[in-house]
Amino acid sequence: MTRGNTEHGARTAPLGVFDSGLGGLTVVRALRARLPAESIVYLGDTARVPYGSRSAATVRRYAVGCAKLLARRGVKAIVVACNTVSAVALETLRAELDLPVSGVILPGARAAVAAARGRKVCVLATVGTVASGAYTRAVAALSSRTEVMGIPTPLLVGLAEEGWTEGEVPRLVVRRYLEPLVRDRVADEARGDAAASARVGCVVLGCTHFPLFRTFIEEEAARALGEPVPVVDSATAAAEDVADFLAARELAAPGTAQGKLELCVTDVPVAFERVARSFLGEAVGTVEQVDL
Amino acid sequence: MTRGNTEHGARTAPLGVFDSGLGGLTVVRALRARLPAESIVYLGDTARVPYGSRSAATVRRYAVGCAKLLARRGVKAIVVACNTVSAVALETLRAELDLPVSGVILPGARAAVAAARGRKVCVLATVGTVASGAYTRAVAALSSRTEVMGIPTPLLVGLAEEGWTEGEVPRLVVRRYLEPLVRDRVADEARGDAAASARVGCVVLGCTHFPLFRTFIEEEAARALGEPVPVVDSATAAAEDVADFLAARELAAPGTAQGKLELCVTDVPVAFERVARSFLGEAVGTVEQVDL
Repeated sequence: MTRGNTEHGARTAPLGVFDSGLGGLTVVRALRARLPAESIVYLGDTARVPYGSRSAATVRRYAVGCAKLLARRGVKAIVVACNTVSAVALETLRAELDLPVSGVILPGARAAVAAARGRKVCVLATVGTVASGAYTRAVAALSSRTEVMGIPTPLLVGLAEEGWTEGEVPRLVVRRYLEPLVRDRVADEARGDAAASARVGCVVLGCTHFPLFRTFIEEEAARALGEPVPVVDSATAAAEDVADFLAARELAAPGTAQGKLELCVTDVPVAFERVARSFLGEAVGTVEQVDL
Repeated sequence: MTRGNTEHGARTAPLGVFDSGLGGLTVVRALRARLPAESIVYLGDTARVPYGSRSAATVRRYAVGCAKLLARRGVKAIVVACNTVSAVALETLRAELDLPVSGVILPGARAAVAAARGRKVCVLATVGTVASGAYTRAVAALSSRTEVMGIPTPLLVGLAEEGWTEGEVPRLVVRRYLEPLVRDRVADEARGDAAASARVGCVVLGCTHFPLFRTFIEEEAARALGEPVPVVDSATAAAEDVADFLAARELAAPGTAQGKLELCVTDVPVAFERVARSFLGEAVGTVEQVDL
């Protein structure tokens, strides 16, 4: 979080978390594991999901609407639990809101640079996130020697929403998406290029839906590269970032009681309960439908 | 089309066609093949796609917005090129607009009843279309002895938009979605139920994206059922319905010159050109971005 205005943020106020849909609940899950005392108001813009294939201008307009709704609910900070929004709209949100705003990309890039140890970082994300070049810029700002390779993997979003997180189909989808890693390795070997920087050293789950496929991604990346590589989850990295920020600004919720969780959505989609539970990792309580 | 007001429809006026996204271009393709002289204004609500997973109330609100925009452009009739909208919003559209409105479900159901010849009709569609029960009602109104079995197949939408219409992944996705046909057949055989009405006699492509998977669906349905079954495309059936309607009301475009095609979208998504061309079957011309 690079900007803040702590007048607005009493320690007991909730965190405002938003995403284009329900995938951001994986960030809520990571926040509740890392910061159990924090109360959270979550907004899923399910009426306009997905953002990942939309133009940057449209994503920015939608993101400002989501963040302003959370601001009206008195949150102490905004956590953007959506890689696409983090990729194209953080500056706009910071300009339009008088609240600290954090995203998932910078924390994810930081964890990736540490895990890759000088090798190339492979980012799996939506079409919009990859096209934005946001991970490439974030990694370049942290380490001039670390290369980034982005692979758009939009079908993993559909598979997660369908609940097809096991079996042959998700494995084959992951395998097909990771084919560039095989081609890369074969080309390197043909050239006799043994430079560490040319080899993939970590894979980033650059979309909130992808932790559900972590095992497949680990296994198929190891298969493609001929060796295991660390997989970095941007949701976990984002929760760490929020913890650091709250501590530094003395904004962390006091006490040890479990914080409250309020869920708001712009549309109650079919199969909401099942999909939300798969991301959140616990049963969802009541949900409120809001207009944007 | 059950309602019309021909004062509004000069023969030379265009048809207004809309869909939640670009999939409705398969209906435009069928219309241009069947009715080459008709001019068409197509609206794809790409800023709010997909409709298939949204609540019926939201789909109705979006659909009215789309149809009114086309009405302001002077179209002579509205063709709803979206199964989800046809399933839940046709009555609302007819109440709100002073124009004839046709959909894809009634024509698709009519073609399915003819093809199934007394056997069961299997409809592949979005979650929203299946949940609406619209095909079941439309088939029941045409034939009291024909049963309907709906299978929600939302991942086929994602595969079409990703351009993965060939290879192992779409085949396995189709095969997994058609597993209920295998279970059904095994249960029938175990019961010794040889009644024709219990066996699937045709498969309906109940979503505008699915013609792209026609071959896989034909092959996998034959594999699941142990015999080939006809596959009915609701886009082709809808174009036939429009042709009948225009002829009956003397609204068909005069002459033999190829009609114009205007494309409007609410957002220009990434990969628009490639995806639009795959549905339309020809290169797209200029596209206009409109606000809703």
